[in-house]
Amino acid sequence: MDEVKVIEIKKSVFADNDIDAGNLRKELKEKGVYLLNLMSSPGSGKTTTLIRTINLIKDKLRVAVMEADIDSDVDAVKIREATGIESIQLHTGGMCHLDAEMTRQGLDNLPMEGVDLVILENVGNLVCPAEFDTGSCRNAMILSVPEGDDKPLKYPLMFSVCDLVLVNKTDVMPYFDFDLEKCTGYVRMRNPKARVIPICAKTGEGVDAFADWLLTEVENWKK
Amino acid sequence: MDEVKVIEIKKSVFADNDIDAGNLRKELKEKGVYLLNLMSSPGSGKTTTLIRTINLIKDKLRVAVMEADIDSDVDAVKIREATGIESIQLHTGGMCHLDAEMTRQGLDNLPMEGVDLVILENVGNLVCPAEFDTGSCRNAMILSVPEGDDKPLKYPLMFSVCDLVLVNKTDVMPYFDFDLEKCTGYVRMRNPKARVIPICAKTGEGVDAFADWLLTEVENWKK
Repeated sequence: MDEVKVIEIKKSVFADNDIDAGNLRKELKEKGVYLLNLMSSPGSGKTTTLIRTINLIKDKLRVAVMEADIDSDVDAVKIREATGIESIQLHTGGMCHLDAEMTRQGLDNLPMEGVDLVILENVGNLVCPAEFDTGSCRNAMILSVPEGDDKPLKYPLMFSVCDLVLVNKTDVMPYFDFDLEKCTGYVRMRNPKARVIPICAKTGEGVDAFADWLLTEVENWKK
Repeated sequence: MDEVKVIEIKKSVFADNDIDAGNLRKELKEKGVYLLNLMSSPGSGKTTTLIRTINLIKDKLRVAVMEADIDSDVDAVKIREATGIESIQLHTGGMCHLDAEMTRQGLDNLPMEGVDLVILENVGNLVCPAEFDTGSCRNAMILSVPEGDDKPLKYPLMFSVCDLVLVNKTDVMPYFDFDLEKCTGYVRMRNPKARVIPICAKTGEGVDAFADWLLTEVENWKK
């Protein structure tokens, strides 16, 4: 298999990220491309979730993935090997988040011919990525069971900017004190409209609900 | 029980954090106070580990804790209720890390009479806290088993600045693909001198080794 493309992301020069993000979103709308910004803590299972999900939707949508990481390109390789779709690695060079201009640098390096859905796997961090609009159509995040059900109390901004919270690793629920109902309540405190979907990326349980959500989102975006 | 003190941390005005951190470390050495900077991802078990450890050493050392969080003061309350030691909450107001000046703001609000050891529980984040010297005598971090053994590959700076890596939640090792030997190898790639101690904060297994490390560290610092 070919080596994955690795893009060394440069620091943005734009002063107003919100304006830049708004412009990027408008361009994506015109092109009929849906961009999802997926955030989480390190090790919550973003890559495994993406592999499962992409394999469920790749016959219906043309999907591409941008994997942001400080270093290493293990994730982009994993995604490509497990799904066969186009996947590139964005190296942030120590930067803790992506903004709209950095996201654009990634999109410029992705073969976009016919692509319906681009998923940006943001840097594993519950703090900084929440502060920067990437220009995505939606923000989603993964909270894994071992992290604890109290995370919406501790990382308020992350949960208030996300429209979808995937609660991953439900298979290990019996070994952790994790109360899904309580967690959902905390998520709604931050964002009353947020959708919460419990999944287990390892076994595939619940991933179809995320896939359906994505298919509907992309369909509505293209209208 | 009294309410815990909550300090709203202000942004630093100092241009050179390294100089400021060096000064703070010198002051701590003169006072015979050991400061440990404990970092990790969200939900890796920092607070539970601290409770277990403090209860093992509090008869030998006078310990105080500073809990940094963007919001909420659940951790400082937990620590105080479970150990009886002095514990304050530092609110970072959305900031993703602590630097030396912010750490000093916390120390200034802690009753320091007779204190041998101060533990700073940094913001749950594997990226930004690694970039800022807090003025601590040592950096330590917790990597929990569910996060995966590949984290030293993905967050190189964090692992290179830490002298001690606690691998927590070893009780759930059978349910995750986590190879302790491989992980230790990755840690040593980043910092050949790093000590790796596997622990289970929930059951207490291995925590005595961390407690012994701390006792020796504080003893050497006071010489």
